[in-house]
Amino acid sequence: MGDPAGIGMELTARLLDDPAIANAARLIVIGDRRMLAHGARHADLSPAVPGWGVHEALPAKGHVLLDLHHGDPADFPIGLASLAGGRFALRNFVTALAMARDGQADAVVFTPFNKQAMRMARADYDDEIALVTETLGATRDGREFNILQGLWNARVTSHIALKDVAARLSIDAVAEAGLLAQRSLREAGLDRPRLAVAALNPHAGDGGNFGREEIEVIEPAVRRLRADGVDAKGPIPADTVFVRAHKGEFDMVLTMYHDQGQIAMKLLGFERGVTLLGGYAVPICTPAHGTAYDIAGKGLAHPGAARNAVLLAASMASRRGAGG
Amino acid sequence: MGDPAGIGMELTARLLDDPAIANAARLIVIGDRRMLAHGARHADLSPAVPGWGVHEALPAKGHVLLDLHHGDPADFPIGLASLAGGRFALRNFVTALAMARDGQADAVVFTPFNKQAMRMARADYDDEIALVTETLGATRDGREFNILQGLWNARVTSHIALKDVAARLSIDAVAEAGLLAQRSLREAGLDRPRLAVAALNPHAGDGGNFGREEIEVIEPAVRRLRADGVDAKGPIPADTVFVRAHKGEFDMVLTMYHDQGQIAMKLLGFERGVTLLGGYAVPICTPAHGTAYDIAGKGLAHPGAARNAVLLAASMASRRGAGG
Repeated sequence: MGDPAGIGMELTARLLDDPAIANAARLIVIGDRRMLAHGARHADLSPAVPGWGVHEALPAKGHVLLDLHHGDPADFPIGLASLAGGRFALRNFVTALAMARDGQADAVVFTPFNKQAMRMARADYDDEIALVTETLGATRDGREFNILQGLWNARVTSHIALKDVAARLSIDAVAEAGLLAQRSLREAGLDRPRLAVAALNPHAGDGGNFGREEIEVIEPAVRRLRADGVDAKGPIPADTVFVRAHKGEFDMVLTMYHDQGQIAMKLLGFERGVTLLGGYAVPICTPAHGTAYDIAGKGLAHPGAARNAVLLAASMASRRGAGG
Repeated sequence: MGDPAGIGMELTARLLDDPAIANAARLIVIGDRRMLAHGARHADLSPAVPGWGVHEALPAKGHVLLDLHHGDPADFPIGLASLAGGRFALRNFVTALAMARDGQADAVVFTPFNKQAMRMARADYDDEIALVTETLGATRDGREFNILQGLWNARVTSHIALKDVAARLSIDAVAEAGLLAQRSLREAGLDRPRLAVAALNPHAGDGGNFGREEIEVIEPAVRRLRADGVDAKGPIPADTVFVRAHKGEFDMVLTMYHDQGQIAMKLLGFERGVTLLGGYAVPICTPAHGTAYDIAGKGLAHPGAARNAVLLAASMASRRGAGG
């Protein structure tokens, strides 16, 4: 359970009621039974989910609820970002990550966080990556993937000033991002993913006239990726790469900076998509949309993206389990 | 007439045959009668256009052809970028600009250039701006506007390396671009255009966490624009500004760098749009698509964007004439 003041509670109820989800995964819902009842009421559902404790054996089948007894609907007015709401979401998330770390969960999915509430609860919160790395005890940070209708996007740099992007690019950084992309796409079921690598500069630098990073960094990184067996192409001008990918030429676009991919993905309707944190011991997925405070509590929230988040996490986890 | 090896010749024939164009403008087609006949054959048309010389009086009505006798179809194989083709397009364009400078034309429109051919004919060719400034004897460079179905985009910086963008932004540069945008939109018939100013950094800098240009440059520029009577809003994160503009919230998005706007505009189908060079004594328009060598000579080229280029140029020129 993510932020308790948004649409996450009703989405949780809908996921528990969805036969396709039951077929793909066993959910251990982490939060509070009162909040689940609250969300179920909004969704006009009444999913029956037995309680479960971390030291108990799991029942033979079906979803369960890990009730942390820390969420009373009265404490989280709908549509209001609060410290209490941030703490609720944060504790659920950390509990899920700890279970994944300890082998009690094969994947983690969360309903949307509210950034403002998360920052009240954890002052240095920018995104989930630092928190996940720390809680899982991972040796390195994972990477965010954005996925919309079969089109994946990952980026070499993310939450940094645009003026610092060029200096952060290196052959190693681009090639490592490409390798992780290929690994993640394979775990998602694509045997030979087609990877497009975006240029940094306008017109891909126009042969060095508008910047040399294509020649000095991106081209060598693409050569290295190809030598490593990745079906990578690039550098491709940023203003055409998504047009081509959207037409089906590529499965993934690797972008050099945050907005290069986000401008395109959001125009294509990314709020219906899924965000994956890849590169960790377990897949971590969330719907791309936010807490939608404006429609929360009204039963209007469409569960499509949350459903896709669970299905992707389950699919990746089962393939990982099969592989080793 | 732009590049002679692409779709420009058949587009010219179609424009001459179009009643809506005849209603909005008198075209002085600059090129060669043999090339017009060539394009007309491909378009399966036979527009009757009298010849005209720059020292003659214009006939009472109708389009005319200024035949420079410098283009034999045999010299321009379809689909091939050549020095001869670049010279043909360049001379036509410079002639049109000179006529505009001398008061013999109210606007300039050109069918697509081929960049490779233009560079053969003029080594320092990057875009049309330097050439236009020089030929018109303008005191300062104009600015490119991209227009698609009522949505305008202009940028503060353009053909420079991404790493140099931040240093080139200033309150003056952003505010001047916004003022020129408002002037151009008004000439195109919008009395009170709604202008969105894009942020530079991810999440608009996130309050200074990922870059300070929003706080130090863009916000002050937007304040100055508003003080000058421009309905400007921003800085707005680059990954949502086009989603909002596309839904109709803004008439124009002012972007800070080339790909910020081009990624969005091309995904929205900008090849059907129009490019305007604004800020000069006359409007200069061209369809956004290229020479389309792959379909040239087959009568397949859709004239929609070229038609919109003429209609916008005519509309802006007539409003300018009325205004002063």
